[in-house]
Amino acid sequence: MTNLPSNKITVLCGGVGAAKLLTGLVTVTDSSEVTAVVNIADDTTFHGLHISPDLDTVTYTLAGEINPATGWGLKDEGWKAMEMVRRYGGIDWFQLGDRDLGTHLYRTQRLSEGASLQEVTEEITRAWNLSVTILPASNDPIKTVVTTDLGEEIGFQDYFVRLSHDVTVSDIRFEGIHNAKPSLGILEKIQEADAVIIAPSNPIVSIAPILEIPGIREALQDQRGRVTAISGIVGGRALKGPADRLLQELGYEPSVVGVARLYRDISSTLVIDEVDIDDKQRVEQEGIECVVTNTIMSNPKAAAALCQTVLNLGS
Amino acid sequence: MTNLPSNKITVLCGGVGAAKLLTGLVTVTDSSEVTAVVNIADDTTFHGLHISPDLDTVTYTLAGEINPATGWGLKDEGWKAMEMVRRYGGIDWFQLGDRDLGTHLYRTQRLSEGASLQEVTEEITRAWNLSVTILPASNDPIKTVVTTDLGEEIGFQDYFVRLSHDVTVSDIRFEGIHNAKPSLGILEKIQEADAVIIAPSNPIVSIAPILEIPGIREALQDQRGRVTAISGIVGGRALKGPADRLLQELGYEPSVVGVARLYRDISSTLVIDEVDIDDKQRVEQEGIECVVTNTIMSNPKAAAALCQTVLNLGS
Repeated sequence: MTNLPSNKITVLCGGVGAAKLLTGLVTVTDSSEVTAVVNIADDTTFHGLHISPDLDTVTYTLAGEINPATGWGLKDEGWKAMEMVRRYGGIDWFQLGDRDLGTHLYRTQRLSEGASLQEVTEEITRAWNLSVTILPASNDPIKTVVTTDLGEEIGFQDYFVRLSHDVTVSDIRFEGIHNAKPSLGILEKIQEADAVIIAPSNPIVSIAPILEIPGIREALQDQRGRVTAISGIVGGRALKGPADRLLQELGYEPSVVGVARLYRDISSTLVIDEVDIDDKQRVEQEGIECVVTNTIMSNPKAAAALCQTVLNLGS
Repeated sequence: MTNLPSNKITVLCGGVGAAKLLTGLVTVTDSSEVTAVVNIADDTTFHGLHISPDLDTVTYTLAGEINPATGWGLKDEGWKAMEMVRRYGGIDWFQLGDRDLGTHLYRTQRLSEGASLQEVTEEITRAWNLSVTILPASNDPIKTVVTTDLGEEIGFQDYFVRLSHDVTVSDIRFEGIHNAKPSLGILEKIQEADAVIIAPSNPIVSIAPILEIPGIREALQDQRGRVTAISGIVGGRALKGPADRLLQELGYEPSVVGVARLYRDISSTLVIDEVDIDDKQRVEQEGIECVVTNTIMSNPKAAAALCQTVLNLGS
């Protein structure tokens, strides 16, 4: 059916950056052997609906349905429901398009019927005819709680969307994570993988809440030689979102070296962008191999080239 | 501000028929003195959202936003969310338009924050600039449970929408009603009313679950002389919905006489349609005064004329 190489590849994913990586990946390897393990710690409830932003961004992107202007949400979207919520003076800062709402309605209904998030995700993935296996990091609730420098604890979407992450953070914790289990199959998908890729997602709020689920870090450590991380920090800045600020505010170096320190125990290789070539040696001094390439996925071709580079590392 | 007579009028309401009556009523009397007490026993939860069909039909109709083609739902409606639900194979027989969803989102959010249904209803009413006071019959959950002739118990919307009420009913009960309280102000609105009107709604599934809330029937009995019911049965048929079948299946006569028997203890007058003039005497034999007029609210003018007739009864 496919002439692409058939490698078992497991990708740890946040939202937009990971979704771009996956669209490249499925053009250079057999997508039916690709597993995306997706962060769920920024899942939230608005208006009674269970919303899984990262799962939806990955799904919509792979389905070719993502809104290209934003990198999240759906194309051909309508806003009639939100206009009504606004009329009522309801919460309108978390934008939920009419099509997008259909996903949240379905997910919430199925969860209320007792289906696991994993089962619902599989159903949604199937409806979009995706061959990539998309696994929520856990079926158990994990909630990213952000402490601001004023000592206030707020939910992740309050931080990320309502406050546009324009606030100083003094702490981040993942409520529920110590009692959470990896969703079914994740540990096997790590253990059996020919390659594990850590997507260039936010290491603090997208990747960490996957790694800290009991069992996942250990499984990665056992596979360390096959794990490659891609730095989401380029030239000291996050390409998108607050990763650079968060690293700094939480005491990490906002650079590829800071990223290397976060991943060196689970990953044998860090892929950094060409603009960071001067940091290559410092990365390697952290005990992690360093590959320099173009990591900016400005289009699907660039994403595919990055994925090809990563896959070639193992051969 | 208004030259209309200022009478305190309380109307017991189901959905479509009551909504039509109210649109007539506000043209012949000061709307700020009108209170609509609305059935909530057909409230339901789909996709995690609290849906109050009768409250919404009354609100949307008074707001001039109702879909005139159906008598329920909103005009200028979109269906993007439902299309997605359908793609996922979710529950799509209960149609929720995109604009309509905005109401359910807002209501569900506010209820989850601890607001009462009454408070939320007031907020929604205010957002539509309505001067009629709309009160849910209760802030406590009441669920109409329908037993079919196969002995199966189903929810009201399963009966009404999914099965298009095309099934024989052997019993109807209102789960939770004995522990439910009238929402705040209802008893006073009945006690202080110059006139109480029982809208031509379904007596079995719209009006009964208001009457059976502890305290309401007694309050109406005390005011019986000021209570007028309008028969929703015309020529032995319900103008809309399954009232005629339900009356028959549950052992009542599907006629204005059957309606008279249901209301005679709380209402001094029954308004029946001209086509039923031959039943006038039989109605009066039930110990209830009978007024014959055109009850078919084919347009707002006809609704207004019917309301004027009812209001004139008291003077």
